[in-house]
Amino acid sequence: MEKVKRGERLIAMTRVLSSNPNKVIPYQVFCDQFKAAKSSISEDIAMIERVMATFELGEVTTVTGAAGGVRFRPMMPANEAHSFIQGIADALNTPDRALPGGYLYLSDLLSDPVMTRRMGTIMAQPCFDLDVGFVLTMETKGIPVAMMTAEALNVPLLIARRSSKVYEGSSVNISYPDGKGGIETMSLARRAVMQGQRALIVDDFMRHGGTALGMITLMKEFNIEVAGLTFMLAQEREQPLTDLPEWPLMTFTGDGIDTPMVVQPAKWLKDFGETAS
Amino acid sequence: MEKVKRGERLIAMTRVLSSNPNKVIPYQVFCDQFKAAKSSISEDIAMIERVMATFELGEVTTVTGAAGGVRFRPMMPANEAHSFIQGIADALNTPDRALPGGYLYLSDLLSDPVMTRRMGTIMAQPCFDLDVGFVLTMETKGIPVAMMTAEALNVPLLIARRSSKVYEGSSVNISYPDGKGGIETMSLARRAVMQGQRALIVDDFMRHGGTALGMITLMKEFNIEVAGLTFMLAQEREQPLTDLPEWPLMTFTGDGIDTPMVVQPAKWLKDFGETAS
Repeated sequence: MEKVKRGERLIAMTRVLSSNPNKVIPYQVFCDQFKAAKSSISEDIAMIERVMATFELGEVTTVTGAAGGVRFRPMMPANEAHSFIQGIADALNTPDRALPGGYLYLSDLLSDPVMTRRMGTIMAQPCFDLDVGFVLTMETKGIPVAMMTAEALNVPLLIARRSSKVYEGSSVNISYPDGKGGIETMSLARRAVMQGQRALIVDDFMRHGGTALGMITLMKEFNIEVAGLTFMLAQEREQPLTDLPEWPLMTFTGDGIDTPMVVQPAKWLKDFGETAS
Repeated sequence: MEKVKRGERLIAMTRVLSSNPNKVIPYQVFCDQFKAAKSSISEDIAMIERVMATFELGEVTTVTGAAGGVRFRPMMPANEAHSFIQGIADALNTPDRALPGGYLYLSDLLSDPVMTRRMGTIMAQPCFDLDVGFVLTMETKGIPVAMMTAEALNVPLLIARRSSKVYEGSSVNISYPDGKGGIETMSLARRAVMQGQRALIVDDFMRHGGTALGMITLMKEFNIEVAGLTFMLAQEREQPLTDLPEWPLMTFTGDGIDTPMVVQPAKWLKDFGETAS
């Protein structure tokens, strides 16, 4: 192949970085692909880094050392994240969202790839430096947003199930209190988990915390440390559920039966933005 | 903001296009963002189109008319798609994949964001011009790859469930033969579906076709036309399951009980590449 012009390299490299979130790509890969000197690639990356920062399209970082290279992380500016989440909260506060029994209709938001990708990007933000080995979620509703979070972090998604399935092979099953006085079961394929990894728990909705505590118990069975929890929507509570860090995108008050549910963006979204900038 | 240099525009535009698959973005959006003339943006897009094609990183097309603009579609070259799927087929043909009862362990492949994104990209390829309004899948295992297909097509993902849930609101429930002599039920939220749309059915595994036929029946209840079906892995059969177009990524022979299951890439992958190039 002929030598590639600078503008062309910039396009191709931006595309490759965009489609490989949180993956360290050695400079040499680009040098070989574009028949370019390391100094040229280095200049290109500096420019991509600057443009991504200027237009708030993500974070490009040079990672030094033997396993070094360039890494792209999808980031959303704090004010944009906050107003996006505010928009979802406003939508959830409309009366036609309320379902009998204190539930909110969320499925359309969780089924929209644009929404779930943006939510997953925000959920991943505080977790990039937690050394997370995989994302764990409980079937079914939270899977899409958990998948997007896992993709941003470049780690696998593990799905705990309500019952063990023949096509999962042997599994670990636990029973856990659902937080409403009942007992549920949860199952995870034995071969899904690698020892020594840390888990990030992602779910769509947390009220009593039964499912979240169940997932923490399940991880104990596998000797896996939980690095933190993130939810699309969690009940506001005086005491946190656990000692673990927690990042809900939105919190709600009210039970939807005696008192109306009111949803608002989580406070950490603003704090996180301030710390980051 | 100052006028933006060409190299910088190329980077930002490539990033924006990459993160908005199958969405038509009006030229004016870029003119405004970068304070550039339409002729400059037009030249930039021609260059991005050429580079994406040269390095086989996706397809950039100019869409004319009132709702016109530029559209990016993630595409994988036919030979790359074929060898990627061949690699998965080889992995599935190793003995440690076989589970009792004629099942294969697929969960790790379906839990890897890199794998699922690539599979979703290939699944979307023959469906871009089918005027698909949403992707439909059945919980649980196929959700990640169905989500990635939906994102490539820029349409929502609808998830049919084994039983109706209070947080889905009112739902349509059907019973269907599971193809093994039993009866199963399937449920979809009423408000999930918009009239007049066409559905693409995506699932991870198809043997007897019970679930797939169930989803087709479910769509009939909603007066929704099915545009086609795509599977990660489907049993090779003499007669197609229906009259609808079908795109499995891989097919298998053998039932895993009396005869070993043997997986191979689907034939259309090669044909499709030849037609496309």
